[in-house]
Amino acid sequence: MAGEGRGRAVTRIAEVTITPVAFRDPPLLNSNGVHEPFALRAILECRTDDGLVGLGETYGELAHLERLRAVAPRLAGLDPFELNELHRRVAESLGEAPHGGHWSRAVEETFGAVEVAFYDIAGKATGRTVAELLGGAVRDAVPYSAYLFYRWAEHPGDPGYEPDAWGAALDPDGIVAQAARMVESYGFTSLKLKGGVFPPDEEVDAIHALRAAFPEHPLRIDPNAAWSVPTSLAVARALDGELEYLEDPTDGIAAMAAVAAGSSMPLATNMCVVEMAHIPPAVEQKAVGIVLADHHYWGGLSGSRQLAAICATFGIGLSMHSNSHLGISLAAMTHLAAATPNLGYACDTHRPWQAGEDVVAPGVLEFENGSVALPTAPGLGVELDRDALGVLAEQYERCGVRTRDDTGYMQRFDPGYVRMRPRW
Amino acid sequence: MAGEGRGRAVTRIAEVTITPVAFRDPPLLNSNGVHEPFALRAILECRTDDGLVGLGETYGELAHLERLRAVAPRLAGLDPFELNELHRRVAESLGEAPHGGHWSRAVEETFGAVEVAFYDIAGKATGRTVAELLGGAVRDAVPYSAYLFYRWAEHPGDPGYEPDAWGAALDPDGIVAQAARMVESYGFTSLKLKGGVFPPDEEVDAIHALRAAFPEHPLRIDPNAAWSVPTSLAVARALDGELEYLEDPTDGIAAMAAVAAGSSMPLATNMCVVEMAHIPPAVEQKAVGIVLADHHYWGGLSGSRQLAAICATFGIGLSMHSNSHLGISLAAMTHLAAATPNLGYACDTHRPWQAGEDVVAPGVLEFENGSVALPTAPGLGVELDRDALGVLAEQYERCGVRTRDDTGYMQRFDPGYVRMRPRW
Repeated sequence: MAGEGRGRAVTRIAEVTITPVAFRDPPLLNSNGVHEPFALRAILECRTDDGLVGLGETYGELAHLERLRAVAPRLAGLDPFELNELHRRVAESLGEAPHGGHWSRAVEETFGAVEVAFYDIAGKATGRTVAELLGGAVRDAVPYSAYLFYRWAEHPGDPGYEPDAWGAALDPDGIVAQAARMVESYGFTSLKLKGGVFPPDEEVDAIHALRAAFPEHPLRIDPNAAWSVPTSLAVARALDGELEYLEDPTDGIAAMAAVAAGSSMPLATNMCVVEMAHIPPAVEQKAVGIVLADHHYWGGLSGSRQLAAICATFGIGLSMHSNSHLGISLAAMTHLAAATPNLGYACDTHRPWQAGEDVVAPGVLEFENGSVALPTAPGLGVELDRDALGVLAEQYERCGVRTRDDTGYMQRFDPGYVRMRPRW
Repeated sequence: MAGEGRGRAVTRIAEVTITPVAFRDPPLLNSNGVHEPFALRAILECRTDDGLVGLGETYGELAHLERLRAVAPRLAGLDPFELNELHRRVAESLGEAPHGGHWSRAVEETFGAVEVAFYDIAGKATGRTVAELLGGAVRDAVPYSAYLFYRWAEHPGDPGYEPDAWGAALDPDGIVAQAARMVESYGFTSLKLKGGVFPPDEEVDAIHALRAAFPEHPLRIDPNAAWSVPTSLAVARALDGELEYLEDPTDGIAAMAAVAAGSSMPLATNMCVVEMAHIPPAVEQKAVGIVLADHHYWGGLSGSRQLAAICATFGIGLSMHSNSHLGISLAAMTHLAAATPNLGYACDTHRPWQAGEDVVAPGVLEFENGSVALPTAPGLGVELDRDALGVLAEQYERCGVRTRDDTGYMQRFDPGYVRMRPRW
């Protein structure tokens, strides 16, 4: 049998291109301030010596771009299946020694960026989707949740920046109207409110209003740790019976554990458990009931699968986090979620806020009933639109944003604004 | 890019053959009795519709054969990458509903048997080794430890069964002589003694004798939980500074935790932590410092990789367990170990005791300096020797052994022998 193989399918990385891009982002409010007019991403193209191209999408902040640029020249010659060696080279490039399982967030973020592109190539080289390479889809479409934000109608002080059609949302009525439009447009069957913007009682009222308007939709609120433990406990009491989960009400594992012990709903996090080293103390202190996966920082698709296995083993629920993103990330999220049996919640996505700008060709990744159908072409199943990439790359050069700074942007309009955690 | 793939490489399971085999096994003593003259395995051949064959090797006991035979007819049409669907079908075949992460040992054992054969096919279909499919080798050769057994020279009461050349080992001198021959023949650089056979002070003396004879070799002893907590603590004190790890001195997570708390060396286990559900209490009680992986019961290669990730996350060491096995299992163990960065100990293997009988063609899987070089041909890289398979299958039919019963076999020669845990 040993000689029976199909022959060595040589596919080795020859060249890696990194293109920072900027895309329009509405003035979405959060506990740190407000989204700037442009969000940043970096687009990776990994070309093999036999003409395949794997796509990746990751953070576009300068510090991350520098990491990617340090790693890129060291990838030549790798087979896309060699993830262990990729990990070693990434750690080495960033000056970290391999140490048997625990890696820094910088290593995991950089590895994750390249690893998705490697999976895309591996799928194209073997005629299989990324979901198939991850063990096969257990669902044909992945449910996402509507990501509701308090927001302004337009970016202030920038008359040339055309506002989007969503309008402002600054109170319960505005949030309910936004949710209605989201549900109408995309079919979402669960709703998440980004909180931490207004005093907690106003945000509690917004959840009450959502519950009244959408009695069947699971609801979440995520104030990004803007609340103290007593405030979090008070909100949890006020929202008893209304939330699917309460995400990051407060800061740190110990404080989350204190809130969890006094709350009826499970707590979720993408803040206090964001790398493997955080899991043991979170488990020991029973701090969280749900961890949000995110292949961008959990060590790619393979690292996210490890997280999924850990969550399954320790009886922790699994959901998925999102930053502002484009189509390559959405495709990767969809493949990962489709192939992960214990991903039991609708995933987060900022997708509706970025409608209209992307680097992938349209036609895949459409929402139907709040879900994205799994792409069926080999690899990630999305195609780079080189013209669109050029437009967003030029926009990156022009826009001047180089590092996300929601607080500094807010202070341009409200000089007395300060970042506080907890704020209430 | 989406259309750029190499085209769908259709490879679907058409037929699964299960062949129980028996191979000669020496009278190796352990805490349950003594190995019978024949050890059992089942050999799987998964044939695809386009002529690839994937090999698997697993337990040959009747109950397990029945599980395999229940599952086999339900595998037709599966792509070898569809491990999630394989898992679902296995659970369904065995009457268990999917439940998001925790599976019974029966499901994991049955899944693991087929999953290795699927990886063999996937490797052959894509021109890659199993280690490459697991992320790529981090070592070219996998170190194994010498597995020392107290043993009789020959099987009593069976004049037609030719004894092997190893002779008896019933005291420290016999163990040291066996170790010397093992090291001489295979180059092993670490030594493991199967204990639980003689009173603990005699086995402590054997370790002292090994330490004196092999001052540089890491040493382990594994009495298979034959000792009480006080006895285990006394042995740990007596062997302070001499052991790499103490394996399963006593029975159950709570008792192991009590021993761990009073012992200088780490405790290892393949008895109290053998499925995912055992990990949380073992972590909480700090019962073990090292878990032994074994793809045969930890849900295959993918399940073992999940275990490896959990161990890395929780600061638990990882070693590898072995039952009596043939070359397909050795190949799978070698690929898994080669591609698992945090597998930090030499793996167990019974291989030297089965020298001379196998189902794979010779020439691969040779020991050099105690290590097995990673096979380089696609898939597992071993070739089924159909004549040899026929010989061992016929031996299975003739030998009459259908379920391993070390205790019953011992009682044929020592009618007063009883299985006791703890014995001391």
